[in-house]
Amino acid sequence: MTYFRDNVEKAAGYTPGFQPKAMDVVKLNTNENPYPPSPLVLKALAEIKPEQLRRYPDPLADTFRKAAAGVHGIRPENIMACNGGDELLSMAVRAFCDEKRAVAYPVPTYSLYPVLAKLQNCKAIEIPFNDDFSLPAGLEKTGAALTIVCNPNAPSGSFIKPARLAELAKKITVRQAHRPERSRRKGVLLIDEAYIDFAEENCLKLINDFDNCIILRSLSKGYSLAGIRFGYAVANKNLIAGLMKLKDSYNVDGVAIAVATAAIKDQTYFRENVEKIKRDRQVLTGQLRSLGFVVPDSSSNFVFAEGKTAGFIYEKLVQRNIYVRYWKQPGIENKLRISVGSAEQNEKLISAIKEILAQ
Amino acid sequence: MTYFRDNVEKAAGYTPGFQPKAMDVVKLNTNENPYPPSPLVLKALAEIKPEQLRRYPDPLADTFRKAAAGVHGIRPENIMACNGGDELLSMAVRAFCDEKRAVAYPVPTYSLYPVLAKLQNCKAIEIPFNDDFSLPAGLEKTGAALTIVCNPNAPSGSFIKPARLAELAKKITVRQAHRPERSRRKGVLLIDEAYIDFAEENCLKLINDFDNCIILRSLSKGYSLAGIRFGYAVANKNLIAGLMKLKDSYNVDGVAIAVATAAIKDQTYFRENVEKIKRDRQVLTGQLRSLGFVVPDSSSNFVFAEGKTAGFIYEKLVQRNIYVRYWKQPGIENKLRISVGSAEQNEKLISAIKEILAQ
Repeated sequence: MTYFRDNVEKAAGYTPGFQPKAMDVVKLNTNENPYPPSPLVLKALAEIKPEQLRRYPDPLADTFRKAAAGVHGIRPENIMACNGGDELLSMAVRAFCDEKRAVAYPVPTYSLYPVLAKLQNCKAIEIPFNDDFSLPAGLEKTGAALTIVCNPNAPSGSFIKPARLAELAKKITVRQAHRPERSRRKGVLLIDEAYIDFAEENCLKLINDFDNCIILRSLSKGYSLAGIRFGYAVANKNLIAGLMKLKDSYNVDGVAIAVATAAIKDQTYFRENVEKIKRDRQVLTGQLRSLGFVVPDSSSNFVFAEGKTAGFIYEKLVQRNIYVRYWKQPGIENKLRISVGSAEQNEKLISAIKEILAQ
Repeated sequence: MTYFRDNVEKAAGYTPGFQPKAMDVVKLNTNENPYPPSPLVLKALAEIKPEQLRRYPDPLADTFRKAAAGVHGIRPENIMACNGGDELLSMAVRAFCDEKRAVAYPVPTYSLYPVLAKLQNCKAIEIPFNDDFSLPAGLEKTGAALTIVCNPNAPSGSFIKPARLAELAKKITVRQAHRPERSRRKGVLLIDEAYIDFAEENCLKLINDFDNCIILRSLSKGYSLAGIRFGYAVANKNLIAGLMKLKDSYNVDGVAIAVATAAIKDQTYFRENVEKIKRDRQVLTGQLRSLGFVVPDSSSNFVFAEGKTAGFIYEKLVQRNIYVRYWKQPGIENKLRISVGSAEQNEKLISAIKEILAQ
């Protein structure tokens, strides 16, 4: 006997990457930034007053919205703060999808998308990426109310050019049985830019031309703030106003708002940090290739390394307290997704793999 | 033209109480605790390491669950941590309700419930409280999949005895057109105990006897932590496991977990603080009554004062930077919901009302 809706009962839920509680591990499995957050973040944290804990936070996180708007050259009303990027994904599926309105996305990708579809009881249309991880043509013709493209994509690290996504935003329409073809509405395109800080371009400009585009941003990766759960949506102000209806009144906490605002204001620290990771990504990619892995160029803070003994290497790394991500799933079962760590962590990983391969 | 589902397009969204940004106001409108959080909370905050910001938090907030389980004499698997109590309400409506499965609750009550129903596109069955704010008999026969009782209730401050709620938990069944009467399933009863810290009894024990009961708790009121957004569900472990599917992977942040854990461990500070507020509630109730208001006894950290010129007094208080809650709604349009502040704040309020009435 169950109390839950059937679709919830049948849903498996999302399994996040393992979070070892010990601090002395080499943790390259959930794409955290290897460097601490900006000193200005630590200063903001130290300056939190008891009053900020006691009182409800600003429901709209306006100080953050203003700071982020300044950084991006947009307006605060184009921004909504979220309790991590995941909250925005959940809100978008609830806002646009239901039993008659599908969600579509290219696969393989972030494995949370099908979980959210299941919970909302909407159809999930999965279109395989082309072999080179370019966007499949079929994605334009799904008729889905919501199309999600993770860009850079996880776990592949591949990148779709903004012009190609603009084309997609232009073409997607919602299929509705009772509506004649000519009156079809445009679908919504959500571009999940959780990893965009490590790419060379981004899709923010699309919101000027497309009122059906939502850009997801996160402070977990580039800004080293996975611990405080802070992401945001960027979109046309009407889309933002509609999404606001779905958020909890006080969805982001007062400490998180202060800390996230300090982080986004320190663009100098952010850029230096990102550049370091990009350089180390280059080194790590080269080392893995020379060990026989097939490693495509990555636009993210992780690499996706293919090797026949991936599962074996994964197990052996765990024994050495080194964590990377591995899925026993058809199509990706011989691949490891490895977060770019500090130079020292990357060295430990490479040494360990060398030892494992030499056994 | 809209991109949203029809029910979302038509929803108005929830309007939280006004959060003045200035700090030098008498803020008695959103039921915050007038006292700062425990010194141990401030210590925990000061001890946050950059590493806790950088890394993802524990997805299950186990340190908090263990601490809360110890306080309540239950097991950690009976607890789920939430990004504020509101997140649990949203998750419950999504878990149990849809177009064919209604939510029911006695009214007037927390005005978020109908908003959540609208967003989930489920029917909201509203049964008026009896005149003395006892539970209406009709609530047992709604056939709803989810019944919510806010206890102590907001905005009335009234309290339903646990035995009466146990009776309700026993009787509620879900009406489903295609199911014969005899195979009907029990409905779920969610008891919203956001304000329970200020009452004399609570319903925690119900989870031992009823596998269809969820208790909502919040750290916003009794623990003075409205700013960090932390609540939790207490229920049978199977119900908790099912609800977990609906939560974002990392729904509560690492700083909030540390701070909330410190708060719940300091039961001495908590109890002293709560007792002070209960004493001041008594004083405030007496003063308002002697000014001609009708004020029922409150089991919460606010009082619900009825007076013919409530709207007028509200406006005049705002001009004096004193904020209370007032709704221009039929049935409650001559009432003020006033949070119990510090003795000093309550005095300022009473003096201001005296002046206003003397004008």
